[in-house]
Amino acid sequence: MIVGVGLIGGSIGLAVRKRRLARTVIGLDRDPKSLDRAAARGAIDPVPADRAGLKKAVGGADLVILAVPVGRARSVARELAPWLAAGTIVTDVGSVKGPLVRDLEEAFAPRVRFVGGHPIAGREKSGVEAASPDLFSEALFVLTPTSRTKPEAIRTVRRFWEALGSRVVTIDPDDHDRILAAVSHLPHLIAYALVNTLFDLERRNGDLLSFSAGGFRDFARIAASSPRMWRDICLANRKNLTAAIGAYESRLGRLKQLLAKGNGPALEAEFEAARAGMERSDPRRKHGIDHG
Amino acid sequence: MIVGVGLIGGSIGLAVRKRRLARTVIGLDRDPKSLDRAAARGAIDPVPADRAGLKKAVGGADLVILAVPVGRARSVARELAPWLAAGTIVTDVGSVKGPLVRDLEEAFAPRVRFVGGHPIAGREKSGVEAASPDLFSEALFVLTPTSRTKPEAIRTVRRFWEALGSRVVTIDPDDHDRILAAVSHLPHLIAYALVNTLFDLERRNGDLLSFSAGGFRDFARIAASSPRMWRDICLANRKNLTAAIGAYESRLGRLKQLLAKGNGPALEAEFEAARAGMERSDPRRKHGIDHG
Repeated sequence: MIVGVGLIGGSIGLAVRKRRLARTVIGLDRDPKSLDRAAARGAIDPVPADRAGLKKAVGGADLVILAVPVGRARSVARELAPWLAAGTIVTDVGSVKGPLVRDLEEAFAPRVRFVGGHPIAGREKSGVEAASPDLFSEALFVLTPTSRTKPEAIRTVRRFWEALGSRVVTIDPDDHDRILAAVSHLPHLIAYALVNTLFDLERRNGDLLSFSAGGFRDFARIAASSPRMWRDICLANRKNLTAAIGAYESRLGRLKQLLAKGNGPALEAEFEAARAGMERSDPRRKHGIDHG
Repeated sequence: MIVGVGLIGGSIGLAVRKRRLARTVIGLDRDPKSLDRAAARGAIDPVPADRAGLKKAVGGADLVILAVPVGRARSVARELAPWLAAGTIVTDVGSVKGPLVRDLEEAFAPRVRFVGGHPIAGREKSGVEAASPDLFSEALFVLTPTSRTKPEAIRTVRRFWEALGSRVVTIDPDDHDRILAAVSHLPHLIAYALVNTLFDLERRNGDLLSFSAGGFRDFARIAASSPRMWRDICLANRKNLTAAIGAYESRLGRLKQLLAKGNGPALEAEFEAARAGMERSDPRRKHGIDHG
């Protein structure tokens, strides 16, 4: 069962269907239109029209995937928990894990077995229209069990994502948040800041964006991501993100200083460190994944 | 004649050959191996082995394109000027224009007619091996004449780049630098700073990069650009770039502050302004170009 049939939920549905991993894929969403579109795309089975039918379907789910926005996961979990059968395994796809995992464990325990997870996959576009059955294929999936997590839940969810073609790694929820603050949340914040800087400069000096070259276009693409989703992610991972911004400001400040001094050799050394470091630690070489 | 047969010079040679725009393409480079590789790729004609033959070829050139790094353009121009026939038209491809254009005008005047230019095209890889005959096709070319520029030079260089498939726009050299500082040089500096921040955080906390997602990978690609070239560009456009960094630091500082206050609505408004602004000013809609 998939709760929330947007880009991620819809893609999970399509992937499950394509790989024939479940007889029935139940979809839930607070927006009936999203459910209709998800059913039309074949991401979920037709939703039972009556409340009794729906209740029965939900109670019979073997695996429940919460694919709602980070900011809504807690309330959805509390609403959902009483409907689920004892022993049901629930997982999520939230981009922030530490506090969320603890709260979701709390919301489902002791009847329902929860384990947190995060597929490192996405697109700038949102909604089931942008969903793809291959979104998770060759992607990384981060599983974030705690000391309270039942081994069976870990096993089931790991196998599920492996069946979707993902490579599963297991890390602590708080480590996940610290890592994602650096490799994902900070880059998004930077992209938003850069794009708004360009609008500031345009207001002052006239057209800039029609001259935008490769360097900027990559940022612009990132800044097209859902503002609401990124607001929730940034707030939920506020502490780690603030620390990452601080580290970044120091690095940028150093470059600015070297520029002010006209220190060519040191500037080149900074650029070379970045280039050489990236060459050494090409992410495609780790976890055996070709991210494309 | 192409002076400097790296990525850009080599691509110009291949494009001229593909479109049969010149009978002979003479190549010059301080590195004989680059010349050999450029000739082997068919980007230039075989270079005359003797000095007299070379001198004759250079003196007979109709159009000379300086495609050397920004940091070397002045010395190459001074060296080259006496070899060229009176009335020869010279242009360049430097990523920074204001002071460079003035110095190159000075180096070539009064015998040789110079007009500055900048093809907004490139790749992370450098060298003639990465050259492509279609690098400038559908790309923007910025022509930067001054009050001293001869109309004939403007016409010839404009037609040349249009023949390569570029769309040519004309702007003031100093405006070019202000604009490129924002849309190209700042994004590169930001990417270098971010990549080095991640290495800082890795040294402190362990592996990060193997979890890198879409957001970061785009930056990493930018940071793979040539450190020496970007050192020269940043130094040459120091004043504009410093101003752009300042504007950017304010924007980033504001996001950090909103995050510290947990101000969700204001944070979302910042993100939404970036997203909506990008949607309004899609660069592909301007200058009639599909940047891909």
